[in-house]
Amino acid sequence: MNSIKQPQLSKLCIHTITTKPWKIEEAAKNFSASGVKGITVWRDALEGRNIKDTGKMLRDQGLEIVSLCRGGFFPASDVNKRKLAIDDNRKAIAEAYELGTSMIVLVCGADPCLSLEESRKQIHDGIATVLPDAAAAGIKLAIEPLHPMYADTRSAINTLSQANDMAEELDSPYVGVAVDVYHLWWDPNLETEIKRCGKNGNLMAFHICDWNVPTKDFLLDRGLMGEGCIPIKKIRGWVEETGFNGFNEVEIFSTSYWKEDQGEFLKKIIKAYKGNS
Amino acid sequence: MNSIKQPQLSKLCIHTITTKPWKIEEAAKNFSASGVKGITVWRDALEGRNIKDTGKMLRDQGLEIVSLCRGGFFPASDVNKRKLAIDDNRKAIAEAYELGTSMIVLVCGADPCLSLEESRKQIHDGIATVLPDAAAAGIKLAIEPLHPMYADTRSAINTLSQANDMAEELDSPYVGVAVDVYHLWWDPNLETEIKRCGKNGNLMAFHICDWNVPTKDFLLDRGLMGEGCIPIKKIRGWVEETGFNGFNEVEIFSTSYWKEDQGEFLKKIIKAYKGNS
Repeated sequence: MNSIKQPQLSKLCIHTITTKPWKIEEAAKNFSASGVKGITVWRDALEGRNIKDTGKMLRDQGLEIVSLCRGGFFPASDVNKRKLAIDDNRKAIAEAYELGTSMIVLVCGADPCLSLEESRKQIHDGIATVLPDAAAAGIKLAIEPLHPMYADTRSAINTLSQANDMAEELDSPYVGVAVDVYHLWWDPNLETEIKRCGKNGNLMAFHICDWNVPTKDFLLDRGLMGEGCIPIKKIRGWVEETGFNGFNEVEIFSTSYWKEDQGEFLKKIIKAYKGNS
Repeated sequence: MNSIKQPQLSKLCIHTITTKPWKIEEAAKNFSASGVKGITVWRDALEGRNIKDTGKMLRDQGLEIVSLCRGGFFPASDVNKRKLAIDDNRKAIAEAYELGTSMIVLVCGADPCLSLEESRKQIHDGIATVLPDAAAAGIKLAIEPLHPMYADTRSAINTLSQANDMAEELDSPYVGVAVDVYHLWWDPNLETEIKRCGKNGNLMAFHICDWNVPTKDFLLDRGLMGEGCIPIKKIRGWVEETGFNGFNEVEIFSTSYWKEDQGEFLKKIIKAYKGNS
């Protein structure tokens, strides 16, 4: 583990939701001034804005738009809801194109009224349905396996093995996987599955944060790198061994950090990134 | 799934923690009066009591003492804590023997300061260390894989596959596995691993409850069977296909149910057991 180099500041990307109290314009200006080079845009940050202009604004700040978060949520017991999900994913593809990013992260969805097997089938079919649109727009779809504690309503894809299976089945340069340490750190097969993901050309994104001990909220209590128990550096090592050369994306949902001065929080993110990632 | 028969009342076991507000004497009397035939005793329920007499009291009520909950918590970065854990597991074995049960459920433990690999090694070594004591007392040790959301402090064994691996490695008639639907329902390999567990003679216990949607607390918001999204009947079918003929153990931690009249709650448990398990 000691042989793993400190991550480069030029490879740091921050998700807009991480500094949620900031408008995207503020986030862009402050990220840029701090030497951050990448941004992942959550769709709520685009509300009420011209998307093309917002993309230009971000690039003018020297930021690469790593991805748009998020598409997905395909499964539903109600067929009309499934159609709405397809429409919404096509909308996300159009938004990503306008914004000027080449990737959408998929939180695949789950319906507690359906079996996990049926939810998984609907996820597969949903991705297959929008894939031609994504390919036409040049947008990659990154399947993000979510922690098993979200298997009820957020994702029926809960291990990297499942995400790898689905990406390999769909077998397209426009479908891959997003690896997030928060969701996957506990998995005894993680190293093997990261290797497999990289070998098959499916490793498209790498998200970091930490698992607080104890964690007080199912959604909004993610920790800053180094505050919890995830071996981030070790996992980053596995990711980089595959040849992955993309951004390390900081994605933190935290009611407590959102209450802080976001400028101070940004300093903490950069320090934690350099020291504990 | 429709071919799976309703579970028999004579196979219902309730954990003392499920009706935590009741003293064990009250629980025994009320379980017995309702036709419940099994009880799993949590160690806190024995505090201040003569354990041998308590075992006799339970048997006099017509209850089979299915297991003692719980041993385990082996890993620690501090060697003295590891020794204390060994002592405590030996104490649990002695208590189980006095009580007159033949099984202890192991919540194996995890130390967030250690890697999961090291925690797993210490779990293996801890079980191996106390195994001769367990065998001498005729007490089986059931490794309970816990949900990945407990990988920080409660268990580094988070899938049935891992529990099966460990039980097979330890290769003793006194080591097996406890399958709890709450911890394992999300696992895409669950059916396969239940088959494997049964085939190798390691399926020692089956715990039921439900996953509330949404779940509001990491520990104390378990649902009554049928209230959530776990396919309990389907999983019970897999368990019974292996030849498992033991109890269906209701293990619910719920601050909201603990606030209710426990007699009413017991009626709800039996109804939910018959209808939704």
